[in-house]
Amino acid sequence: MELNYSEVKNKIVSFLRKETDRIGIKKAVIGLSGGIDSATSAFLAAEALGKENLLCVLMPYKTSSPESVTDALKVVHKLGVRHKKIEITEIVDTIVSIQGEVSDIRKGNIMARTRMILLFDESNKENAIVIGTGNKTEIYLGYTTIYGDSACSINPIGDLYKTQIFSFAEYLGVPESILKKKPSADLWQGQTDEGEMGILYAEVDKYLYNKFDLKKSSDELFSAGFNKDFIDKVELMIKKNEFKRFLPPIAIISN
Amino acid sequence: MELNYSEVKNKIVSFLRKETDRIGIKKAVIGLSGGIDSATSAFLAAEALGKENLLCVLMPYKTSSPESVTDALKVVHKLGVRHKKIEITEIVDTIVSIQGEVSDIRKGNIMARTRMILLFDESNKENAIVIGTGNKTEIYLGYTTIYGDSACSINPIGDLYKTQIFSFAEYLGVPESILKKKPSADLWQGQTDEGEMGILYAEVDKYLYNKFDLKKSSDELFSAGFNKDFIDKVELMIKKNEFKRFLPPIAIISN
Repeated sequence: MELNYSEVKNKIVSFLRKETDRIGIKKAVIGLSGGIDSATSAFLAAEALGKENLLCVLMPYKTSSPESVTDALKVVHKLGVRHKKIEITEIVDTIVSIQGEVSDIRKGNIMARTRMILLFDESNKENAIVIGTGNKTEIYLGYTTIYGDSACSINPIGDLYKTQIFSFAEYLGVPESILKKKPSADLWQGQTDEGEMGILYAEVDKYLYNKFDLKKSSDELFSAGFNKDFIDKVELMIKKNEFKRFLPPIAIISN
Repeated sequence: MELNYSEVKNKIVSFLRKETDRIGIKKAVIGLSGGIDSATSAFLAAEALGKENLLCVLMPYKTSSPESVTDALKVVHKLGVRHKKIEITEIVDTIVSIQGEVSDIRKGNIMARTRMILLFDESNKENAIVIGTGNKTEIYLGYTTIYGDSACSINPIGDLYKTQIFSFAEYLGVPESILKKKPSADLWQGQTDEGEMGILYAEVDKYLYNKFDLKKSSDELFSAGFNKDFIDKVELMIKKNEFKRFLPPIAIISN
């Protein structure tokens, strides 16, 4: 799982340039949450496309941690890029009031998808692509809102595990306060990824790396020392959320 | 392009049953627009899953044609399924007021994506899958809002061209008023698909069938009698919207 981060950066920067050339669009928008994934994506996009071509969109909800906005602004200032803040509270609360009492999960999905609407609307207005911020861990686990935070035009960091992103972000110069805080979707107060999932990134990344990159069998994974309950929990997440990694199936009629 | 609609129906019904068994979810929700695609999908889903397992969601906007709701209700009553009406006006207008003056295209995207949020929220509440309503013509042309009306869990009619859906819908018993009206996304008053795209379904379906199903080359398509301007227009739509048919590209780092 060790990477040469100078090479990784070169690969991603050239990927972003090649793809935007192919599409014929110079500009990009990105939703900055104040977390490490979107900060890392923003650093890469600013490098690849030029700081004048990147618009960072901050979309706090009334319960979002104030540090989320402060940290996002640190990224904006360090990169010298344009930014825009759009409060999502009124939109989300309107939807919630129409839908009646909604669970935390449903509300979290509504928030993530509301941000998607705004980000894609900004991209349309700006004639820009939407830079994705999903990492490899959350893609495999499906720890994401489909058609919400996972929606994008192009994803620079989707082949990097969360623990790799921590090292990479430090290499890129992402602000310290972002490197130091616990990963969280910040959908409700006190939420942390690891608390919500009940698994640690360090452990699950090792597991996913062994399973998907080294293609170890179930027996080999068990012998490698991962415990049974952990394996069951992770495998259930992978299976339950597998659909998020594929396009919806279509009934085939033609030959 | 001629099909045996009895066979088509069997194929799709067994596809829907197999997929829902695989996922382990019995129930489904579908957004009924009053148009022929969602009506056809609803007829198929009701047949495959049982009328008690289908919830139809009507999501009119203040400018939606009143016939859209009337026609959607005809489907609901003919099938004997549950339904729910959720007005999207307040949500859409809140987003538009925050975003400032938006073009018709941007507003149409906001409407389609707002409906996606509500439909997926209903699916979460009901523990149901979302039945898609996109047809083969609109998928190839990209005449759809990505992460909006194209978002679904499973699509029963995505391998049928629009002109095939007209015949199929008639075979299935979709109400006459739906069969007779001009296809429209009904995103603004007077909108029709053919008017907006500047092409006729009968012609473009023949072209797409020759290109994608019969795999004819550009030269063969030109010799087949399609005129140059028409070909250029259709090819531009296909190319410009191709990204909607694939998952967003990810920068590859691992080997």
